[in-house]
Formats: sequence, C-alpha cells, structure tokens
Amino acid sequence: MAEMFTVLPPEQARTLLFERLPAAVASEAIATSAALDRTLSERPLAPHPLPAFPRSTMDGYAVRAEDTFGAGEMLPAYLEVIGEVPMGRGCELTVGSGQAAVVYTGGMLPAGADAVVMVERTQKLGDSGIEVLRAVAAGENVVAVGEDVKEGEALLEAGHTLRPQDLGGLLALGITTVQVARRPRVAIISTGDEVVAPELTPGPGQIRDINTYTIAGLVERAGGIAVPCGVVGDNFDLLLAAARAALEDADVLVLSAGSSVSTRDMSAEVLNRLGKPGVLVHGVAVKPGKPTILGVCDGKAVLGLPGNPVSAMVVAGLFLVPLIERLQGRSHPTALRRVTARLTHNVASVPGREDYVQVRLVHRDGELWAEPVFGKSNLIYTLVKSDGLLRVPLDTSGLYQGEPVVVELF
Amino acid sequence: MAEMFTVLPPEQARTLLFERLPAAVASEAIATSAALDRTLSERPLAPHPLPAFPRSTMDGYAVRAEDTFGAGEMLPAYLEVIGEVPMGRGCELTVGSGQAAVVYTGGMLPAGADAVVMVERTQKLGDSGIEVLRAVAAGENVVAVGEDVKEGEALLEAGHTLRPQDLGGLLALGITTVQVARRPRVAIISTGDEVVAPELTPGPGQIRDINTYTIAGLVERAGGIAVPCGVVGDNFDLLLAAARAALEDADVLVLSAGSSVSTRDMSAEVLNRLGKPGVLVHGVAVKPGKPTILGVCDGKAVLGLPGNPVSAMVVAGLFLVPLIERLQGRSHPTALRRVTARLTHNVASVPGREDYVQVRLVHRDGELWAEPVFGKSNLIYTLVKSDGLLRVPLDTSGLYQGEPVVVELF
Repeated sequence: MAEMFTVLPPEQARTLLFERLPAAVASEAIATSAALDRTLSERPLAPHPLPAFPRSTMDGYAVRAEDTFGAGEMLPAYLEVIGEVPMGRGCELTVGSGQAAVVYTGGMLPAGADAVVMVERTQKLGDSGIEVLRAVAAGENVVAVGEDVKEGEALLEAGHTLRPQDLGGLLALGITTVQVARRPRVAIISTGDEVVAPELTPGPGQIRDINTYTIAGLVERAGGIAVPCGVVGDNFDLLLAAARAALEDADVLVLSAGSSVSTRDMSAEVLNRLGKPGVLVHGVAVKPGKPTILGVCDGKAVLGLPGNPVSAMVVAGLFLVPLIERLQGRSHPTALRRVTARLTHNVASVPGREDYVQVRLVHRDGELWAEPVFGKSNLIYTLVKSDGLLRVPLDTSGLYQGEPVVVELF
Repeated sequence: MAEMFTVLPPEQARTLLFERLPAAVASEAIATSAALDRTLSERPLAPHPLPAFPRSTMDGYAVRAEDTFGAGEMLPAYLEVIGEVPMGRGCELTVGSGQAAVVYTGGMLPAGADAVVMVERTQKLGDSGIEVLRAVAAGENVVAVGEDVKEGEALLEAGHTLRPQDLGGLLALGITTVQVARRPRVAIISTGDEVVAPELTPGPGQIRDINTYTIAGLVERAGGIAVPCGVVGDNFDLLLAAARAALEDADVLVLSAGSSVSTRDMSAEVLNRLGKPGVLVHGVAVKPGKPTILGVCDGKAVLGLPGNPVSAMVVAGLFLVPLIERLQGRSHPTALRRVTARLTHNVASVPGREDYVQVRLVHRDGELWAEPVFGKSNLIYTLVKSDGLLRVPLDTSGLYQGEPVVVELF
C-alpha cells in the first residue's frame, strides 16, 4: 500500500509536461463558414482592400466637396442632380463641377465626387436641383478604399480562435477556406473493477462511470474531440492493451484511475510501458487532485487522473484543458468566465498547495456572494450544485469571510 | 426617403417581442452523453440513492467504531483481520466485534462495519492482526447511502443548461436519456442588390455578404441552429417569397437589411405580410442599431437587422441571443464573459440611448485597460480588432477616462 509522491506545484508540473510535447497538432483547411471557435494556424492576408470602392455612409448626394465651400442655411450652394447611383452595379455617372448624384448608404461614390451631403442637409429645388445647407469636407460621409482593411494587411494572427465577427471579416474578403489546427483527439479510458457503463445496472459494490462523461464535456468545450473508450477492469495487461489501442488513434490519452491505490499505481506502470519517456510528474500540490500522473509517451501526452470525480474535473481543468488549447496553438487560452463575489465563510488552506473550493453564487443585499458547497470531496453532486470554483493560491493559509474573491464559472 | 421611428429603449422592445411569443419550442429526448450545453425541459429525479451502498473514502480497515473507543498510540485497540473487501463485487464478509476487513477507497463497507480506519493509523501485528492507533466515530471515512443524492430528489431544474458535471451526475444514476429543448432553427436572409455570396467575385458597386455569417456564429453560440438562406435582391415579391419559405422550416427569421433606406422599409412591409401581428417595434434607442425591426408573424419571431455589420452584431446580441435562449426555456441566460477594466479615453454619449462601444483590452502598468476602437461604425474590422463591447447605459451622457467599466467579451 506504500505510495511515494514528489508533489509539484501545478504550474511547474504543467511546464514539465508541455516542454516534452510537440508544439501543436497538424493543421487542415476547412470552410471559413464552418470555422467558428477553431484556431488559425496561418496568418491570413487581405487579397484586396476593403472596401474595394469608395462607399457612402449616408443616404444623400455625392458631390465635389469644393462646390459646398461656405454653404450654410443662409447661403445654400445650388447643385444640379444628374442622376442616381444604382446599388450593386457599376455607375456610369461622373459628377462635374456644380453637379450632384443621389446615393444611398453603401452605394459607390461616382467618379468626380469626393464627399456625400446627407439628405437632411439639403432642400429640393425644382425637378433636378438641390440646395446644400451645410458644407462638407472632402471624404466626409465616405468610407475610402482600404479604410476597413488595406491590401496585403494581416487580418488575424496564427493562434487566434475564430469568433463570429472574424468569420464575417474573412468572408468579406472572399477568404472562403482557412487553415486551422485539427481538433485534438482525446481518448478517455475509465478504469476500475467497480466501474460499469452508465447504461448497465450496477451489481453489489459497483458504480456507474462518471469521469468519461465529465472529461468528455471539458474536452469538447476546449475544442477537442472526445473519444470515449469505455471501462477497463483492474488488469494490467488488459489496461495496457486498451491504452495502446486508444493512443494509436488519438493525440492525448486520459486514464481515469480506479479509486483503489493498486489501480493508481497501475496507471503509472502503464504510462511507463506505453512509450518514452513515460511518467514525468507523479503527484501535484493540488487539493483535490494530488494523485495526478502526467507523462509523455513517444510524443503524445498521457494523463492519469484521480478516480474521484471531483478531483478528476479539477485536475482536467488544470492540465487537460490547457493542453488541448496548446495542441491547437491557441495564443490566448479561452477566456475563463469569471465573476467577483464576496466570500460567505472563512476557507482554510495549507500553504504550498493550491486548493479548489466549489462555490455556489448567491445574491444577498444586492451583492454577489460565493458560498462554499460543503460535502465530501468525492460527491459528484457537490459539483452539480456549484456554480464555479474558487482557487486558494499556493502560498496562502486561507481566505477570509467577506473578502472579495474571483470565481471561475463552470 | 422619409422614415418614421418611434424608438423604444432596448429592454422595453425586448419585452414587447417576448410577450407575443410562445414560451419555448418543443422538447426532444436525446442521449445524456450528447446533451452538453442543451437545456433541460424536464426536472429529472433520482431513481435511487447515490451512492447505493456505503463506500469507504480511504484505504484502510472497515471496523465497528465502538471497538476503537479510547484507542490511541499508547493504548492501541487490537483487531483481527478477517479478509478483504473485493472491488466491484458483493462482499460476503460480516465484521463482528473485535474484527476488521481490508477495504480500499470506493469499496463497499461490509455488513457489521460502520467506519473505516485509515491504513496510516494502524500497525500490522502478525499475519492476521492490526493495532488501531486512533479511535474512529461511527460513519467516519464512509460515504453513507444517499449522502450524494437521496432517492426521489430533484437533480436539476427544468431550464438548466447542462454542463460537464451535470452529464456525469445524471449518468451516475443511470439516466441515459434526457428531455431537452429542441435547438431553435434560425433562418437568415441577407438582402440588398449590392450584396453577393462570399464565394463570388463582387462586380463594381458590389460587396460580399458578411451578416449571414456573423449572425450564424452568434446563433450557434446561443444554442440555435443557423439556417443560412442566401442573398435576396431588393425586390419585394422575391423577398416575401423567400421569407415565407424560410420561415416555414424555422422558429425565427432574421432579415439582414440592405443598407439603403428603401430596403429597410421593405423589411417592415415583408414582416407585416408574413403573418399577424407583424411589426411590433420599428426603431430602438441603441447606437449602433437604431433602424431595428422586431415582429411576430403567426407565432414566430421575425427580426429585421440593420445592414451595417457592426450594428447587425450589436442588435443580434441584444435581441436574437436572448430570444434563442428564451425559446430553449433557459432559466438563466448563458453567463456573459465579462471583465472589469479602466477606460483609456472619455466616451461621449447621449442620454436616452444605449451606446455600444467596441474596445480592445490592453495591459498597462499591471492593470487592464479598455481602449475604444475608433473607426466608422460600418467597418467589420473594427469588430475584428476588438475584444469586446462596452455598454454606455441609457441614462448617462458618457463615461470618463480612468473609470472602471465592465466589458462584455466576444
């Protein structure tokens, strides 16, 4: 039953793992319209300026600005209207001195014109004349060629994760396919003689698998593809064979350990047999989550998570989520959803260890409060009843009631 | 060119729209393992207690607590070890007075035992004896039947959006299918003679469609299914026919207006012809986004968004996203990702109007600052270069440099 841990602070453990891994998975070309939340592995450049022609930002009249010089309510400038700019077609008109053309928002500025007078600043005069009641400067109410984007400009950086407006921006320039990181495939094996698939009725002493599904959810949210590989009993040869097969088709393998100490040791042995260098970290200074194993097997990350479902989720958040983001080359990790709240109770901790406390958010006297959800750390419903996690930093001995704290929402 | 607006504050406009709509779309039964980010339309109850048997939370010995009464380092209690609890099978052992059984974390407590002594608090004595070096109370190091969840307990409320841990919690109880709201289908039509599909090369005066894709991205993120219906020119009959066809197969229709005033009026007319009551709101007190149309046509929401891509995104965020969440019966809207930052510049506004300002987040002297991204409001790349939106409330005349502000991240 003996167990030796050299526990590492989480950040150090993460560094040790990441140093031994290739930077990112391969990229693939996909349709831009289907690339929401995918991470760019190229730096797209503008193939042409945007807009490609000068556009009006108002409904009004395209004019030569110099013709309106000095115009005002008391001394309007008179212009002859020579026609209307059609939407979506070339414009044959040329606006000469003393002339104007009707133009709508988004319409192309005709040749000769360099500004637009808003319709509200004009007065119709007869069939084909207008009075301009206010002067405009050259370029006024016009978007110039390249004012949105210049030709050749870098539109987005490699490593950027695409948002709705980024898709719009790329498609506006006719960039209909983009090179993005392939979604990392994460195989998940739950182990333990006591664990059965959720669709089965557990016999005496058996429980249903939880970790495959909580971890798969985190994988999908981080941009990966979860590949559930079922439950394997506490048998070294079976587990090694299942791990080998799972890793073949995956970028990352997660072993969710059975809860007994013998199966925890089994995960480490499997890691060392799967490939080089094997186990890098055995034990991290995190509560819950101490018996965590991090390793690299022939260039692929293999993580041994504690069997306790609460620990497994905390540890997956600390190591698996950043790993999946890194494998996609994400320059900025997905912004965590965070809120600030005041703490309802003192929370004790031990310096030298990061503690994660499940909290519920409650409104009280118009303020947001974070209330620790108590309960044994292996109860999945303490997580279900929580709104987020509160981190107690490595070097503190606790947090005080009333203190403002940052809660990372689920 | 005349245009009459009775502009409404956004909240009032939203209420007017929501009041006329059915509460939620129909529900469907799906696999729990595939239900991440879906919204429950039922209130699942625990079919049995969790755990279903008393489980050890430690590696150690299952004992009768009373046998350890008074035990200490100086006066250990001697117990006879009668066997080991197997993992994942029924346990035949019965722990009698003066007896103990080896048990691992997660193992079932054998009959007769009511507590577990950690292995670290014992000393082996011969082949089949242990000394207990510390007393345990009844229930110590044990999770009791139903301690996680009691039989019949409501696990989650209807309207709750499922997170990774919720899937785990449901599957732990064998709930392998759940009743969730169907994903609302949102048809999107871009209009305007000047607008062409992104895969085409725009001719003179033409631009590529942006809004279909930015809006589709927002729809997907809110849990809906985006149904892009292409571009329709500025022709009333064609637009009405396209809108009718699109709405038939959708829960919501979004018309992204062409930018000229005539096409904006066309959207309103189409809405009034599509079904009763038609247009409810024409114009909201929002900048950018004033020329917004909200309506209900025979029980389905139809939104007319401004053609300007920046306005379209702001307005979709204000009306379409909450609408999609409401149609799924979400009790809590998806938490926005928010950060607090200090403002780098004064931002002027007009009381009686909500302003949305695009900002970039920058780190300066260890602090987070929100820097307005200037540029004409119809430039899509002002959104691409921004990290989020800053809301200037309805009743203020602006925000001051240095003020802490809340930024809603994209």
